[in-house]
Amino acid sequence: MRVTILGGGGFLGQRIAAALAASGTLGARPVAHLTLFDIAPPRTPAARFPVTALGGDVTDLPAEAIPPGTDVIFHLAAVVSAQAEADYDLGRRVNLRGTDAVVDACRALTAAGGKPPRVVFTSSVASFSGGQNAVLADDARQIPANSYGAQKAAAELILADATRRGFMDAVTVRLPTVVVRPGRPNKAASSFFSAIIREPLLGLETELPVDDGFAVWIASPRRATDWLLHAAAMDTGTMGLDRSLTPPGLSVTVAEMLAALELVKPGASALVRRAADPAIAAIVGGWPAAFIPARAEALGFAPHEPLVDVVRAFVADDLAATRADRGL
Amino acid sequence: MRVTILGGGGFLGQRIAAALAASGTLGARPVAHLTLFDIAPPRTPAARFPVTALGGDVTDLPAEAIPPGTDVIFHLAAVVSAQAEADYDLGRRVNLRGTDAVVDACRALTAAGGKPPRVVFTSSVASFSGGQNAVLADDARQIPANSYGAQKAAAELILADATRRGFMDAVTVRLPTVVVRPGRPNKAASSFFSAIIREPLLGLETELPVDDGFAVWIASPRRATDWLLHAAAMDTGTMGLDRSLTPPGLSVTVAEMLAALELVKPGASALVRRAADPAIAAIVGGWPAAFIPARAEALGFAPHEPLVDVVRAFVADDLAATRADRGL
Repeated sequence: MRVTILGGGGFLGQRIAAALAASGTLGARPVAHLTLFDIAPPRTPAARFPVTALGGDVTDLPAEAIPPGTDVIFHLAAVVSAQAEADYDLGRRVNLRGTDAVVDACRALTAAGGKPPRVVFTSSVASFSGGQNAVLADDARQIPANSYGAQKAAAELILADATRRGFMDAVTVRLPTVVVRPGRPNKAASSFFSAIIREPLLGLETELPVDDGFAVWIASPRRATDWLLHAAAMDTGTMGLDRSLTPPGLSVTVAEMLAALELVKPGASALVRRAADPAIAAIVGGWPAAFIPARAEALGFAPHEPLVDVVRAFVADDLAATRADRGL
Repeated sequence: MRVTILGGGGFLGQRIAAALAASGTLGARPVAHLTLFDIAPPRTPAARFPVTALGGDVTDLPAEAIPPGTDVIFHLAAVVSAQAEADYDLGRRVNLRGTDAVVDACRALTAAGGKPPRVVFTSSVASFSGGQNAVLADDARQIPANSYGAQKAAAELILADATRRGFMDAVTVRLPTVVVRPGRPNKAASSFFSAIIREPLLGLETELPVDDGFAVWIASPRRATDWLLHAAAMDTGTMGLDRSLTPPGLSVTVAEMLAALELVKPGASALVRRAADPAIAAIVGGWPAAFIPARAEALGFAPHEPLVDVVRAFVADDLAATRADRGL
């Protein structure tokens, strides 16, 4: 099985690459070749199969990025929320024209007689609105309150249509806010949801721009990775025209997150300083805080582990590397 | 008030131009200038205000198409359903890149200090699915079963986002199947809905590819034109993030259409020959047959006139011209 990860240098791309390298398989089938594509050639894991790293622009995909015989494409290349809001042209180019480029690459493969590749696309909770009191079912309309969400929702439509036309076999997973992200605070408006756990575990102060009662729909890196691997291997025969799903994340409050942090490292939550930021609160305040992910459950997406396990997994998987990366 | 009609040479574009020319106003404000843009420079109506006709590609809009000071843009330029299904690249280019070009023109106006223009965009019932038994409310998800519908739904998201960002003030009207279209039968799957009224009124035989009990969501040319003019002038202050609406069409069966034809021209329905066509039935069978257009009603969109008036209006407005155009 030949696999490509677009955005393979990113956080989830690297996790998926590592998981494929560790198991040597995807959905019980052996991986024969892995291609990682990103702006710069991504770091490649040690694997029992060949791994190619390519650098370039997703809107101008080289033919080698999705070679003939590709079975699975993880399309994770994106400009994230705050950046897409700050730079409309960049967001539109990468999030929409990049998706068109993936469609065109798959059209070329199928036009040459190849099987439509499975395309696993990451959309986002940010493609919905409704705010703190929303509890959205699978048939909820996507009414985005930001350009990133609008571009992701539009890309979902394009990929579903490309699937209907036989160019590909797409599954869109609308990821919750991923917590705990390793690394350092970034440009995403949601950055603080990870920082309030990660930074105190590193012994660093961090700011909380919303109230303690603020609720958010999250997924751990472990769970998000598992879901994307499941989406790559599952039977799509029952999906019909709608190729998107909301996986079973966790609806948690900031207070619950800080309590889980305290369970893992007592006293650590004292490093979280309340610093209301109306601009950030306005963005994340529009995101729905809960979903009823019935469709994903029926399609076999694993339920989420408890919050305290999310904090413990960050300590086990990422704390030492994050400390080293940041010279702490 | 300065007005531009993109797709101004088309059926609805010409109706809107004629209505503006006849009244000299749009929403009680005098029209100062009208620009009609299409692939070829459109026919211009005689009017008390200057009318400019321009030809070109909507994806490469000349600056004069949307000049500084433009108050209202009717964005009707589109590749329609059968054509977008037959030619994926053409549909994507016109229906999506054309919409991006409108966004960019509006960005240029507002970046130069202009007021965000009202953009009236025509989307379609074809952006939904659900079939004969569907009765869709305003919060129904758009799950298109064709590329045209997918491109229209994606464009709705792009225009709503452009509105949120302050580039424009968009209202998307999701038009029902327009009946009775003048002209001649074509290969579009929906062609027969107009043909079963128009052709018998011309004294010609025509084929009915579905059962008499088949239901369809329609709008007359008069009503569609009125709705688009209303969308251009109405108060959008209560619309929020969702800039789209489904206007109050009519859900009618083929049998009801033929009965209305009989009321206007007794005996005419004998010219309709039953000729089941499973391919056509499969396409139109996916379209929802009814909506609950509560939002549009609250926003002041006029209710639809009875079916018999639709047939009478075709006789009054279009029969003679259609006969002449077709040399009958």
